[in-house]
Formats: sequence, structure tokens, C-alpha cells
Amino acid sequence: MWSRSADRAEAFAEEQGIPRWTTELEEAIADPETDTVVVGLPNHLHEEAIGLCARHRKAVLCTKPLARNADEAKRILDTVEAAGIFAGYLEDLAYTPKTLKALQAVRTGQIGDVTWARSRETHPGPHSAWFWDAKQAGGGAIVDLGCHCTEIVRNYVGKDNRPVDVFCWLDTLVHPIEAEDNAIALIRFESGAIGQFEVSWTFRGGMDLRDEVAGTEGTIWTNHFLRTGFEMFSSGEGGGYVAEKAETTSGWMFPVGDEVAELGYVDMFADMFEAMDEGRQPMETFYDGYVVNAVMDACYRSAKSGRWESVRLDWRGGRVGRVAPLRREWDGKTLIKQEQMPDGRLKLIVKDESTGEFSEVVTEGEPVSTG
Amino acid sequence: MWSRSADRAEAFAEEQGIPRWTTELEEAIADPETDTVVVGLPNHLHEEAIGLCARHRKAVLCTKPLARNADEAKRILDTVEAAGIFAGYLEDLAYTPKTLKALQAVRTGQIGDVTWARSRETHPGPHSAWFWDAKQAGGGAIVDLGCHCTEIVRNYVGKDNRPVDVFCWLDTLVHPIEAEDNAIALIRFESGAIGQFEVSWTFRGGMDLRDEVAGTEGTIWTNHFLRTGFEMFSSGEGGGYVAEKAETTSGWMFPVGDEVAELGYVDMFADMFEAMDEGRQPMETFYDGYVVNAVMDACYRSAKSGRWESVRLDWRGGRVGRVAPLRREWDGKTLIKQEQMPDGRLKLIVKDESTGEFSEVVTEGEPVSTG
Amino acid sequence: MWSRSADRAEAFAEEQGIPRWTTELEEAIADPETDTVVVGLPNHLHEEAIGLCARHRKAVLCTKPLARNADEAKRILDTVEAAGIFAGYLEDLAYTPKTLKALQAVRTGQIGDVTWARSRETHPGPHSAWFWDAKQAGGGAIVDLGCHCTEIVRNYVGKDNRPVDVFCWLDTLVHPIEAEDNAIALIRFESGAIGQFEVSWTFRGGMDLRDEVAGTEGTIWTNHFLRTGFEMFSSGEGGGYVAEKAETTSGWMFPVGDEVAELGYVDMFADMFEAMDEGRQPMETFYDGYVVNAVMDACYRSAKSGRWESVRLDWRGGRVGRVAPLRREWDGKTLIKQEQMPDGRLKLIVKDESTGEFSEVVTEGEPVSTG
Amino acid sequence: MWSRSADRAEAFAEEQGIPRWTTELEEAIADPETDTVVVGLPNHLHEEAIGLCARHRKAVLCTKPLARNADEAKRILDTVEAAGIFAGYLEDLAYTPKTLKALQAVRTGQIGDVTWARSRETHPGPHSAWFWDAKQAGGGAIVDLGCHCTEIVRNYVGKDNRPVDVFCWLDTLVHPIEAEDNAIALIRFESGAIGQFEVSWTFRGGMDLRDEVAGTEGTIWTNHFLRTGFEMFSSGEGGGYVAEKAETTSGWMFPVGDEVAELGYVDMFADMFEAMDEGRQPMETFYDGYVVNAVMDACYRSAKSGRWESVRLDWRGGRVGRVAPLRREWDGKTLIKQEQMPDGRLKLIVKDESTGEFSEVVTEGEPVSTG
Repeated sequence: MWSRSADRAEAFAEEQGIPRWTTELEEAIADPETDTVVVGLPNHLHEEAIGLCARHRKAVLCTKPLARNADEAKRILDTVEAAGIFAGYLEDLAYTPKTLKALQAVRTGQIGDVTWARSRETHPGPHSAWFWDAKQAGGGAIVDLGCHCTEIVRNYVGKDNRPVDVFCWLDTLVHPIEAEDNAIALIRFESGAIGQFEVSWTFRGGMDLRDEVAGTEGTIWTNHFLRTGFEMFSSGEGGGYVAEKAETTSGWMFPVGDEVAELGYVDMFADMFEAMDEGRQPMETFYDGYVVNAVMDACYRSAKSGRWESVRLDWRGGRVGRVAPLRREWDGKTLIKQEQMPDGRLKLIVKDESTGEFSEVVTEGEPVSTG
Repeated sequence: MWSRSADRAEAFAEEQGIPRWTTELEEAIADPETDTVVVGLPNHLHEEAIGLCARHRKAVLCTKPLARNADEAKRILDTVEAAGIFAGYLEDLAYTPKTLKALQAVRTGQIGDVTWARSRETHPGPHSAWFWDAKQAGGGAIVDLGCHCTEIVRNYVGKDNRPVDVFCWLDTLVHPIEAEDNAIALIRFESGAIGQFEVSWTFRGGMDLRDEVAGTEGTIWTNHFLRTGFEMFSSGEGGGYVAEKAETTSGWMFPVGDEVAELGYVDMFADMFEAMDEGRQPMETFYDGYVVNAVMDACYRSAKSGRWESVRLDWRGGRVGRVAPLRREWDGKTLIKQEQMPDGRLKLIVKDESTGEFSEVVTEGEPVSTG
Repeated sequence: MWSRSADRAEAFAEEQGIPRWTTELEEAIADPETDTVVVGLPNHLHEEAIGLCARHRKAVLCTKPLARNADEAKRILDTVEAAGIFAGYLEDLAYTPKTLKALQAVRTGQIGDVTWARSRETHPGPHSAWFWDAKQAGGGAIVDLGCHCTEIVRNYVGKDNRPVDVFCWLDTLVHPIEAEDNAIALIRFESGAIGQFEVSWTFRGGMDLRDEVAGTEGTIWTNHFLRTGFEMFSSGEGGGYVAEKAETTSGWMFPVGDEVAELGYVDMFADMFEAMDEGRQPMETFYDGYVVNAVMDACYRSAKSGRWESVRLDWRGGRVGRVAPLRREWDGKTLIKQEQMPDGRLKLIVKDESTGEFSEVVTEGEPVSTG
Repeated sequence: MWSRSADRAEAFAEEQGIPRWTTELEEAIADPETDTVVVGLPNHLHEEAIGLCARHRKAVLCTKPLARNADEAKRILDTVEAAGIFAGYLEDLAYTPKTLKALQAVRTGQIGDVTWARSRETHPGPHSAWFWDAKQAGGGAIVDLGCHCTEIVRNYVGKDNRPVDVFCWLDTLVHPIEAEDNAIALIRFESGAIGQFEVSWTFRGGMDLRDEVAGTEGTIWTNHFLRTGFEMFSSGEGGGYVAEKAETTSGWMFPVGDEVAELGYVDMFADMFEAMDEGRQPMETFYDGYVVNAVMDACYRSAKSGRWESVRLDWRGGRVGRVAPLRREWDGKTLIKQEQMPDGRLKLIVKDESTGEFSEVVTEGEPVSTG
């Protein structure tokens, strides 16, 4: 086991019963007992650590974001591919149990074509000092949280759906730092679908992780943290840890049953180790990490230019068609909308394509099938 | 009572016990028994109807949006001001009971300075044919729904807080129409606060009216329609009307207790008539309607230009300062964040302003007061 | 305007612009300007005040519970009926907007026959001293809160559905008083439906008012106070009133938009005054108040005897039949249950009535209609 | 692997890659490769299967309920204890992630002394035919679902807290069966705490698994299935499995992220196998299963007698004291309640123990500490 600090290394090794530790990174990676390296370092140290994994041909799992920007991410990607080592991108929030099941529902068509996906990730600010330093982190709330959101959105709209361009607002509204503490971005995909993320280090009330997806045939809402069916009020006479980034230990609180599982870690590591065993790619790869960095680079460019900015990347995905709902007809006109009225009759709004006129029709008939 | 259609006029008058009706608009307005005119016409007819109210010096209440664009709205505003008549802007969703109480909480400082306000208004599309016709309506989902969102956001960030510029994405993704059926906009206010709206005519699942507000000291979430503490499952053996724009009559449904009250109509008309009696302005005025149109104009310009567009308006509000949280210190350093750890100790992240370095401190001490 | 205390009377009259006040009850009621008397006194004073209304032939509206026990309630009922005056029972929680709409859904058959209705009413204890004194109130949490629950349950199962017998547990678990601070009761109705109430003066977290109804074809859940789609977090730097019986002014809070409306007062008084105008009975009558007292008397008897106790009352309602779902058949056997399997096939559980044997059948066929 | 049916055994073994199977129960248990036997049979077969485990000295894990009644459960318990084998009671719902964390909160005092625990478990009826047959199952909804509730309640009030007596209502309201399809029970514990369960095979809308706990200092609400922060609307154009016992595949649906984990199976088996490895008892033992059967026996007796019935069991737990909140004083009087008023002042309700009189005091002072 390796740590930058000898104290922390020793303490952690003792606590976990890990026989050996070191502060020499290469020594730890090169150790013949090391099969797989989990890189959980500050962002500016990813490239070096992964480079050592490639040199010593060790499987590597790297936490999010893969790098501080797309150039760095591309070099990392090229390095591991040249070395032929297994490389997994530890994007835990793409693996939450709710997300996995929701993705399955999307893939089986239960909500039709996805038109919009929103991912929101906000809390009162990160735990470790280095996150707050734009030089080490590569940015602020976007780099810390927007990377999650981007990849969640990509999963919902489909990974073959190219992110074409990006618009982004960012500001430093509350904290006395240089990096952005709030940002909102829009990502336009090839299909016409729009991705949206909101990230903040100034949210009050805990950690808010919510995703919403709209499709032509349905809607999905997931809430991973603050409202999961577990509610507790305490006068505060007792004590104890409630949940990651909770702000209070009295009043109404919203703990999460099994935080590690609900945040995706269990399913993520299961996929990673199964993928290694089966000789396949994991669901989240270094290529995905690189795409995320490319999107975030476009965010920062857009925040400066004040306009849509293209996502510059070496695209390996396929091509997808435009969101394309069926055109339905009624009596030779285009059916715009149909609705059951309280009295049981059907109200239709139709458009006469020859005149461009819209009109309403109320009928006793059956709804026009969408099939 | 007046209606464009004699049939509808007669039917409605009979149902409501209204003694007289006409299809001549001026005749209805000029009638000596008419005190107050409620304009609930398609958008392209507002200006004419309000002009007649001004000519005959009748109080006028006009439904949202005030006009199809800011020029039209400005002419309307000038007309009623020249005539000196009472004019109220029927923006019902600024008057929902939850919004009114939330605004009171904001004004008394319970969430600190507002940094972000999101208003979401989506459903499967409007009931009447004319909404779908961009020529009559002046646009699509933005004009229909974004007007609500814009005014809700303005109320939260403060009406004296000038909307400076706007970014907007729109698209026609699902319906076979020319107008936009989906849009997202960002509104940048003088204080630095950001407004955000999402509107859609393609949402599946009912009518989704939710607002979220973030402040430096708190958070507000309101849900006006689909999740209000009323849940019903029905196998569908029975029947009956459930709620406006509900999509189903079986399965899980989410009715609203008193729709008219929850959508703000009761409190809105109470304010209007009280304002008339008391000789004061109502909470929502034609000037507010004009500001909303100016914001929406900027949305359409931005959607075309792909960049931030200034909100062009004759600003009557005041000036506001920048969101300005206090700078807190700890041991001569800037305090970035403090957090209670599971073991009861306090973890601080501090920044040394002389070196720009961030570091972590764990202490037994008390939290630094935010006062 | 009358009050037991001259100070309060004067203050209230001044605040509300009421021209005259007195501490002489009969004087106030007999006053020729008095049309309708609203009795909002401690329970032990209801009978006297209502007697004066009868003597002076004034319409009377009395708050819940009607009396301290069924004997007192019956005397009150007889008195107003002999006098022929209008008498309305101010059971506000039967009139909440959600309850009114839910009752409509029940009556139109949307959830089939009601089999179970639960009403829960709990908070940390009442505001006024007299409530805590069993002598003045006639009991504790049952008399204060169980009266609401009983009438809500009666509305759901149908007012013609006779409450046959009652089982009740009560205890004084937390407060240093003689009256019960917690109670649970079951009410068995003629149809077989079961009512259930839980009342408490020791609940922590605010005021919890929830009702749940199960029917043969559906389910209804209403939440009137603590979870109504309005959520607020505050660090506590601000201030201000949040909601009736809220316990906190910081952390996560759950205000109610319009408390007075959501607690039923608006619809209740509307019904009362309309009923007076139309010469009809209001939805909630003194007879209903008497039935509620009879049920509560049975609660106290049951809590002592430890067994079901009959509800002793002069029943004016009709007779109702037993909850009676249709018997459905499949292949000559009784169909117990059918369920769609993930693979689209249908799984049936059937009972052979000749042998009493249960078996499972999996089939490609269509579900058996429940019609 | 063993199954009662050769067809199912062969199919399951093939699907799971299990090398051997048999329909001879003893052969399967006696097999030298068998270490641990998981008994998932209909209730009437538990005793025989566990007896064989004892004879062949194999660790045994038995699904809920342990037996059809307390006598049978006691014989089973005596058998495994005499044999000295490891025996774990597979009460999965005591192990849900939310329950485990909530229990931890209770144990660390965050909600004070537990006064009430409600466990609700309802759905439209079980999947397998034998459940519906009272002879094989030993009863209906109580034996199927009440066993879960009883053990959840015991965990919340404390396993050393003896269940003293029980009151129960049951009825067969909907299904054409002899066994009860609905039941409600109250369980009185030595501390004064009251347990409450509601079970039903006639609930419409999915599977409703909710627990609520009230304590002197707080409240806990957990929702394990129908409202866990995952909401989906589908027009029904797609398809696919949603969740166990869901009733619909269109409209609003409430899937669960990872059903197996959320229903407690993951943590339950982890505890069982860790307990075996560590030579300790699991959290849920056969003794717990026996206590649950004793409580359910008392339910059936009470349902017949119409009164409280003692829980007859060989109690191994300890003794606990009565729920005992502190008596707080204010100015020589007993403090009943204190509440912050909108104007910031404090309102106290106090009782003069010498006169028994209750009065209200409004003061500028600080709240009386509950410490």
C-alpha cells in the first residue's frame, strides 16, 4: 500500500491489516504482489501514476476525473492502450443501483427516445484541501462534480451519441477562492437530445444527487442521496454520524441505508473485477474519461467565450439519427395532441398541413394509436 | 360576458347565470355594468382588448404573457398608464400558496442571499389549438410556460434585481410544429444570481411544476402539482377526472387537493381586488409583464445567436449589490469550509492568502461563527 | 364578540375591528346583531353555550369534539333539534382539500370497496393549558385528536356504515399527566371494513397528519402537513414562523403553503354558510359529533376492559352490506390471483373448491377480467 | 442441490451450473460436499428438514417463519441446540440497509426511548400456491408477513424488551380463502412501548413495506419499496420487468435500484457467513424465530377471544425498565411543554402538582434544558 504520507500509510495499513506499505510510488506499483493499482490521487498526479502502471504492466483503475483536461486525458489513454493493460474509469455514480436499473429501462425502450437528461450534483464543498486549489485540481466544481454529471448524461442519451457542442455558465459566488463554485452547462448531442448539469459547492442542506430524464414515451427521476425513503427527526440529544456531507445532527435528517452501495461503489468494483476476469472492457473506460474531459474543456471555453463551443475530441462512437417520433394522422390532418376529457370524449388538436391552420376536434372515438 | 363565438358565449352565460353576453368586444367593455375586464384571449388579441379598456377607462386584468414580445408589451403598458386605469398581470404561479410563503421566507432572510433559482414547467402540450400556432401565440413553449418561470425567478431573486442577459437553447424535438416544444434558459441578474428555466410541451407523466431556490444560508424546493402529498392508486375499474393534464386514469396518480387554489388563482384574484379597493398596485403589474416579455425576447435572440444576449428594457427597478458572503477567518487564514467529523472534532479547510496555499486542520474547537 | 377574559376580548376586538365585546356569554349570544355563534370553548363549556344558542334561537357552529362523552353530546343534539336551529360540527380535517377530493374518488368507485382506513394525528402536545386537564377536556389525546380521526375514517368507509365495536390501547408514556398521551384504536364497521387511528401528544418532528385508505380496487394516501411538496433548509441565520407545531427553525423544514386552507377551515366555513343559506344540513352535523363521542366512549371502555366494546348509540344511518368482491373463475376453479410474469406469460393461482387444493398455472392467455 | 420436483431441480441446476441435484432430501443434506443447508421450503416442511440437518450436523439457515406455531418452533430450536449446529434465521427485512442504519441510530440514542414501532407489510397476495393454503402455511397474511413485522418491531424496541401481550384483529375480506387476508396487531412490551403491525394480501399498488418508529427524542420513517427515490413514468410502449409484486407496467412506477440488497438479502447472508466464520451467533437466531412464532400464536388466540392475550414463551431476554422521560421543572412547577412563539418568546405549559392545575406562561427566557 502506498501513500504520499508515511503517517497515513502506516495508520491505514495497520487498520486494514495490509502487510506492507511505502511512500515510494514506483516501488509500490512495481511490487510483484501488486496486480491492480487503484489511483485515488489528486488530479495532477494521475498521469504520472498511470504511466508507472503502464511501464510495469499493471492493471489500473483511476478515479474521476481521468485528468485535468482532454490533452492530459488523451496522453493517458494512449499510454495505457500502447501498454495493453487493463484500465477502468472509476465513475461510481454511473453505477448506482438506481442508475443501472434506469439505464436498463431506457435501453428496453420504456421511455422512448431520450430528449433531455439533467444531472445535478451539489453539496457545501469538498472534504480535502487540494480540491479547492485550481492548480492541483484543474478547475473547481465542474472538474469535481461535472465529470460525474457528464458521464451520467452520456449513459442516458447513449454512448454512441456524440456530444457536439457545449454552453456553460460558471461563477464564484460564495467561497473566497479562484475556482468556480457554481456552474450550469448544456450539452447538445447528435440526436438533438440535450444534456444539462448543475454543479455547486455552495448548496445548503446536504449532498443533492438527482438525475432526471425525459423521453418521448416517459420520464425517469432518481434521487440518490437526500430523499431515498429514509427520514429521521432527532431533537439532538443523541449523536453519531448521519451521512456524507450532511449539515446537521438534529432536526429532520435524511440518511442513506448503505451509502457505499447507493453511491455505486459496490457495483462499480464488481464490474471492474469481472471485466478483468472476463477479458472485456468495463462499462466505464479510460476512453469515457477522455470524452468527459473533452466536454469539460468545452465548458471552460464556453464560459469564457459566452457562446456554444464545439467538443473537440477523437470520436470513436458511432452515428445516431435524430430523435424521430412518428407522425400520426387523423382525418388527413396531422395529429398534434389527443386527450381524454372528464366526460370520456376525446379532444384532438390537429394541423392542416396544406393551410398551416390548427384546430380542435371533440369526438366520441378511440384514441389514435401511437404504434 | 363576451366570447369570440356566439355558441360558447351563450352556453357559458347560461351555465354561470350571467344575464347578458355578446360577441362584440367593444360593446362588452363599454357596457356601463362592466367595471373590470378580465382578458383571457389568445396572445395576439391582448393589445386590442386592453386598448378598448383604456379608451373606456375600465380596470383590466390580463392573463400571461402580457404580449407576444416586448415592443407590444411596452405599447400596452404605455396605453394603460396614459389612461390611468388599474391594470393587473394575471401571473397565477407567482401567487401559489407555496410560492407566497417561500417568498416570505426569502425576504426574512431564512435562506440568505439567493444565488440560483430554477423554475420548471412542463407538460405534454397545451389544450387549445391557438397555442400551437406561433403566429397567434408569438412563440411556443417559451411564450406559453417560460413567462411563468421568468416571473417566479424574478420574485425569488428580487424584483429590483435587474435581469442583465440571457442564454437560451430551444428545439422542436417531438411535435410536428414550427414553434419550439422544448427550451432551457439561463438569466443572469445584476447580483450575480442565476435564474434557470426548463419548459417543455413533451413531458410525459402529467404537469410538472417545480421550483428550486439556493441561497447562501438555505434551500427551498416547491412542488406545485405532481407530488403534493396526495397519492392514489386505482386499478381503473372506477373512473372520473383526476387532475389537469394528467395522463392516466389508472395506476399511481397524484391528484391535487384544490387545483384552483394550488395554482394560485385564489390568492391572485384576492390580491387584484384588494389592490383595486386599496388603490395600490397589485403584486404583479403590467410592468412585470413587460419585463417578462423583454426576457423572453432575449431568449429568442440568444437561441438564434448562440450566445448571451442583453435584456433590452426600460428598467425601473433599483440597483442591487453583488451576492456577498462574509469572509471568515481562522488563525489569520481564510476559512473555506468547516465540518463536524463523526468523532465530534472539527475539520477546517483554510487558505493562506499570502501563499495561496490550501490546507486542512483538525481541531477540538468550536465551529467559527458565520455571524 | 365574547371571551372569558376581558383582556383577550378587548385585544382581539381591537385587532379585528370588531365593534363590541363582552365577557357575559348570554349577553353576547342574545345580542340582536348576533346571527351565528361559533363555539370554540374548552370542551366542558360546550353544552352551556349551545344551550344558550338554542334558547335564543341562534345558529350555532361548534368546534370538535362536540362534547366530553356521548351522553353530553346526545343532550346537546336533542337541545338543538328541539329548538330547530342550524347546527354545524366544525370538524375541519374532514374538509381538507385533499380529503374532499379523495372522498369524491371513493364515492365514484375509483378504489372499489373500502376495506381499511387509517387516520394518524400526532404532534408534541396541545398549545393551551386546558387540553392537558382531563377534567376540562374529558380525556387526553383521544378526545383532542381521535375525534378528528374517527370522523375522517367514517367519511371514508361511508357514513351509513355503522361503527359496530371498538378496541383501544392507551397509555401515558411521556408527559407527567393523568390523561393518555398515546392511543391506538380499531373500529369495526358493519361492512367488515376496519378503521384505525393513532394519536399522540409525544410525536417529535412537527405535526403529522396522514390518512391512508385501502380499497378492493385501489389505495389513497394523503399527507396534510409535514410532506406536502414544500421543503426548506435553513442554516438558522434568518428567522420567522414556519408552521403550526413545527419543532425547529433551522435544518430541513416542511412548511405548508396556506395552512388555514390545507387544514380545511376555508372549505368548512364555506360549507357551513352555504348550508345555512340553502336550508340544508352541512356535511358535518351535530349528529356526526355525537357518533364520534360514542366511538370515543367505546375507546375508553375498551382500554379498561382490554377487549372489543360495542359502540352504544342511537343509530340513524342505514344498513350496508358486507365488502363483497366478485368471485372469478378459471377453468372451473376459483381464481385466487393472477400476475403478469417478466416473460409476458400469465401466472394464475387457482383453488379447486371440490378438493380445497391450491395450484399454480402458467399460461399464454389473457388476464381474467375482474368486471 | 435438492428440490421436491425433479424437473425444477434439473432446470435450476443447469441454469446455475450446480453439478449435482436430487429429490431425496436426506441424500442432499447428508452429502459430504454439503456444509450449510438453506431451508426455503413451505412452512410445514421446515421441521423435518432441520431435523435432518441436526442429524447430519450441518449448519442450517431457515427462512421465515421458523415454524407454523410456537410449539413446532420450540422443538426445532431444541433440536438444533442439542445438536450444537449453527442455525441462522433468515429474517431478511430485519437486515435491510435502512433498517440496519436506523437500528444503529436507535442504539446510539438519537431518538431517545422508543415508545412506538409500526411495521407495515402489504401486497396483493403471495406468488406461490402453498402460501394460500392455511394447512401448509399455518395461517394467512399473519404467518406470511406478520413474522417480518414482529421481528422488525422487536429490533426497534430492543430484543431484551419482553413482548408481554398481544391484541389482534383479522378478517378475510377479499380473497375466496379460509386464511386471513388482512390483520392488524398490537404488541405490548415490558417497557410500555407498543408495537403495531398491519399486514394485507389485498393491497393495491405494489408492495408496501414501511416502518415508523417514535421515540421520546425523535422519529424514524423508512420506506423500503414503493418510494425510495426512484420514479418512472412510461406510456407503456416499451416493456420489461419493473419490480417484485408491481401491479403495472405503464403510468407512474416506483422501481427499486437493487431489490435484492434493499430487501436485506445481501447484508443477511453476509452476517450469516461471517457469524459462522467467527463462531458467533448471527443477528437473527432460531430463538428469535421462536419468539416471533409465540407472538403470532398470541395474535391468533386474541383474534378468537377478542381480548389481549399473553405471549407464552420461554423468555431468555433480560428485564427492561419503563420508558422514563425526565421530569423537568419551571419555577417549582412541572413543565409539561415549551414552545417558541412566532415573536420569539417562549410559551410554557406548567402543572402545579399541589393543586393539579394547569396554566400557561409566556416568557422572554431561554428554553428549559431537557438534559
